[in-house]
Amino acid sequence: MVVSKAWTLRQHFQGFPKASDFHLREETLPQPKNGQVLLEAVFLSVDPYMRPYSQTMMKEGDVMIGSQVAKVIQSYNPSFPVGCHVVSDCGWRSHWVCDGAELTPVLPDWPQDIPLSLALGAIGMPGLTALYGLEEVCEIKKGETLLVNAAAGAVGSVVGQIAKIKGCRVVGCAGTDTKVSYLKELGFDQVFNYKTATSLEESLREAAPHGYDCYFENVGGKFSSVVMPQMREYGRIAVCGSISMYNDTTPQTGILSTPQTVILQHTVQHHTTDRYTVHTTDGYTVHTTDGYTVHTTDGYTVHTTDGYTVHTTDGYTVHTTDGYT
Amino acid sequence: MVVSKAWTLRQHFQGFPKASDFHLREETLPQPKNGQVLLEAVFLSVDPYMRPYSQTMMKEGDVMIGSQVAKVIQSYNPSFPVGCHVVSDCGWRSHWVCDGAELTPVLPDWPQDIPLSLALGAIGMPGLTALYGLEEVCEIKKGETLLVNAAAGAVGSVVGQIAKIKGCRVVGCAGTDTKVSYLKELGFDQVFNYKTATSLEESLREAAPHGYDCYFENVGGKFSSVVMPQMREYGRIAVCGSISMYNDTTPQTGILSTPQTVILQHTVQHHTTDRYTVHTTDGYTVHTTDGYTVHTTDGYTVHTTDGYTVHTTDGYTVHTTDGYT
Repeated sequence: MVVSKAWTLRQHFQGFPKASDFHLREETLPQPKNGQVLLEAVFLSVDPYMRPYSQTMMKEGDVMIGSQVAKVIQSYNPSFPVGCHVVSDCGWRSHWVCDGAELTPVLPDWPQDIPLSLALGAIGMPGLTALYGLEEVCEIKKGETLLVNAAAGAVGSVVGQIAKIKGCRVVGCAGTDTKVSYLKELGFDQVFNYKTATSLEESLREAAPHGYDCYFENVGGKFSSVVMPQMREYGRIAVCGSISMYNDTTPQTGILSTPQTVILQHTVQHHTTDRYTVHTTDGYTVHTTDGYTVHTTDGYTVHTTDGYTVHTTDGYTVHTTDGYT
Repeated sequence: MVVSKAWTLRQHFQGFPKASDFHLREETLPQPKNGQVLLEAVFLSVDPYMRPYSQTMMKEGDVMIGSQVAKVIQSYNPSFPVGCHVVSDCGWRSHWVCDGAELTPVLPDWPQDIPLSLALGAIGMPGLTALYGLEEVCEIKKGETLLVNAAAGAVGSVVGQIAKIKGCRVVGCAGTDTKVSYLKELGFDQVFNYKTATSLEESLREAAPHGYDCYFENVGGKFSSVVMPQMREYGRIAVCGSISMYNDTTPQTGILSTPQTVILQHTVQHHTTDRYTVHTTDGYTVHTTDGYTVHTTDGYTVHTTDGYTVHTTDGYTVHTTDGYT
């Protein structure tokens, strides 16, 4: 019998999440049966989506939603032998008993020098979200100009890198000078700090005087309202998140879309990875439905704080600063 | 030598268009040369798109943009013999000299009992906009629930009829009780007058308690903000117009889109007929790129005022109440 530790949502977030919204509880797990495995968490992911999804998918007292990289420590399922690593959606738990149906194996030939935590980042859901948004939603083409905001985030940083590989001009926005420097190192063509820019509108226009073909949108709200008039004809907008709004207690208001967006025939698609399809593209290796292969783009940032993986997301305040073990 | 009469834009519209924004001038046309034809207008179209397009496509003094059904009265082009009818984009003019490159022939077997003006309505651009939005943008499927606003308009009334043919449940909104009755006659499942409804939000919810799969959007602004939270997962929104905003002197403000639209993975596409493709579908006959075939849906409304065709659009105030001849 194993005692698992699990972070639960004590109460729904109001405004910015705070430590007292969570509760760490212990639960005794059943002995795994035939076909089942016992998992031990190696990396938990903290992602911005948890903030809005918690409102709709969770009730108070539930274990926090989320993916983890876990190691199989007991196995009665030959597909998942002891010692192998998997990605599981079992939430913020130290241990879990399950069958293999919901598990994605991390490939056994995962290179030693690539952290396993990347299965939750550039090689996992955030990377796929970036890829899907660029390929399926934006149908991005060589030579086009792309804007991505929250560009130093788990998704945004991959978006910019893939777009560069595809021969696009990439403009990124981020909220600190450190992030701006990081994105320049990654090869973004133009990056600015939207918090210190005198005018977001002018900074965007200077970065792309002819406008944007594609806009990978992670921020929403007023930021988005400023970008929209600078989209070109047949502009494509992949809406992946709206992090500026997640902690709002009252919805943001602003100028609603104008008739101009009809004339210019913009397409806006809100997407998550639920819709992704399997790709085999040149220049980077991508996820397949039955496991992870290894990503080779330059530049990934992994912060490990007491055993948790914290992505470099913009403005998100839930940090698991205390270890669970 | 023929003297043509042409309505010009004396000054850009400010707020609601008014008669003094237009100027009727005469212009002497050149004699048609080899390959050219002389056209005489039979029906001019007044469409809502002219209001926003005039801001971006026209300068003061230009002849008003627009399509017309015209009769060929002199011809030096064997493709367009004298007496045939064509659709031309030459604007609000009584006569015009041009070659055939920009002309779409009205088929010679157009039935006698179908008004030629429908080549500017259900069998023309508005009908195609409806068709394109439903098929290409919404990819509408049998059994789905559709909302269309400005539903008695040239586009909206065709949207609802095609969606019914495709086996959908159709909810329409319009702004007068006469329009509501008309839409019920056309077979819409549920119609309400949004101007007299106590609550737009509640009326929408009562009409479709499980929400909307597709939303054919002609109105924009605050109306749209009320609809969006009632869209179902994978909801598709065909944005064809935003008539509630065309006459605004200051842009409408309201609640900006919420994180919920990302979770539900809505798709929003702004479209005009520039993008349309040729369809051959069952149940109604549609446009082909080299001419018009005849539409057989029930119900079309054509108002003819002194030789002009005025579509039953919602809230649009430019009426050519004076004849040009």
